[in-house]
Amino acid sequence: MVRHVDVPGVGDPRRFGYAQAVTAGGLLYISGQLGIDEDYQPVSDSFDEQAYRALENVRRVLSAAGGGFEHLVSMTIYLTDMRTAPRFFEIRREILGDTLVSSTAVAVSGLPLPNLQVEVQCVALAPSHPAA
Amino acid sequence: MVRHVDVPGVGDPRRFGYAQAVTAGGLLYISGQLGIDEDYQPVSDSFDEQAYRALENVRRVLSAAGGGFEHLVSMTIYLTDMRTAPRFFEIRREILGDTLVSSTAVAVSGLPLPNLQVEVQCVALAPSHPAA
Amino acid sequence: MVRHVDVPGVGDPRRFGYAQAVTAGGLLYISGQLGIDEDYQPVSDSFDEQAYRALENVRRVLSAAGGGFEHLVSMTIYLTDMRTAPRFFEIRREILGDTLVSSTAVAVSGLPLPNLQVEVQCVALAPSHPAA
Repeated sequence: MVRHVDVPGVGDPRRFGYAQAVTAGGLLYISGQLGIDEDYQPVSDSFDEQAYRALENVRRVLSAAGGGFEHLVSMTIYLTDMRTAPRFFEIRREILGDTLVSSTAVAVSGLPLPNLQVEVQCVALAPSHPAA
Repeated sequence: MVRHVDVPGVGDPRRFGYAQAVTAGGLLYISGQLGIDEDYQPVSDSFDEQAYRALENVRRVLSAAGGGFEHLVSMTIYLTDMRTAPRFFEIRREILGDTLVSSTAVAVSGLPLPNLQVEVQCVALAPSHPAA
Repeated sequence: MVRHVDVPGVGDPRRFGYAQAVTAGGLLYISGQLGIDEDYQPVSDSFDEQAYRALENVRRVLSAAGGGFEHLVSMTIYLTDMRTAPRFFEIRREILGDTLVSSTAVAVSGLPLPNLQVEVQCVALAPSHPAA
């Protein structure tokens, strides 16, 4: 089991008692990623900018673990307003390209910081394993 | 890693940039299933009919991956009204029989289409592995 | 695949058609744990007491599967009020010590019983596998 705490460009989660990702059983469990910078500050009030940054944070966690988007297996998307779902899917497709993940979307009544509109929770293949 | 896109009788997820299921690490991650038909149309306004169809869609995904309900490991149930939970558990028991899954139920403020009342997100043992 | 139904001190889930945990693919999927006793009664209206009990129930499930908190991989936290998140993280840190899990927190509109304020859904390394 490997607990990934240090992820360049993503906030240090130790002060909140968690790791950005944990590798176990050949899989990489990534903590919920938001449109926040490495100081845990929202990057914008814009949905698009939050969505791009949340996915960029996922990419940074994958990269710190030695992998990339092609390792993604599953994505749970928590939105504060379900009407943003179609736009999220467009952005995800732009960012992930041909990589198709298993996907679940729900609307929730709140996210960890005010004004945040989207959180993504991912499971990936642990990058030390061949992605084939 | 196998990305299951073509599932007979379940909607084609490619246009939304996802797969109905992804196999990795010996597990099958199934996308959130709803009471919708293969054209992404709700089958009914009835909770029961939506719940039966969501579970039937799970069965079709499992079948397309070479398995069945006996491979199910985990189920997260998102309901728009927690008062429907007891009825969902009855329906699940009727459909799954003696197969017991790990289970988590929460009420959410919205699901991907209006009038939908239940979404189920499942993890299964990848059917190519022996179910013992 | 092992379906853990009998967990000392935690409610019998058979009547609701699920297992407290299921082992598959080297991982242990634990059902959502709440601040309830083995008769499915809330232990308290206090957030703190509910959070401690939910984590204690996780510990009991891990113990019944032959493991402990050091096996924890991932934790999804469902809160009815996001303002309780900082307190939950404090309690988790007190209970888990140096064990860092991947973590996702969202606010939901309801949990399985009235007055419950927190539910935790965990994935762990199956304890029969070495925790290293």
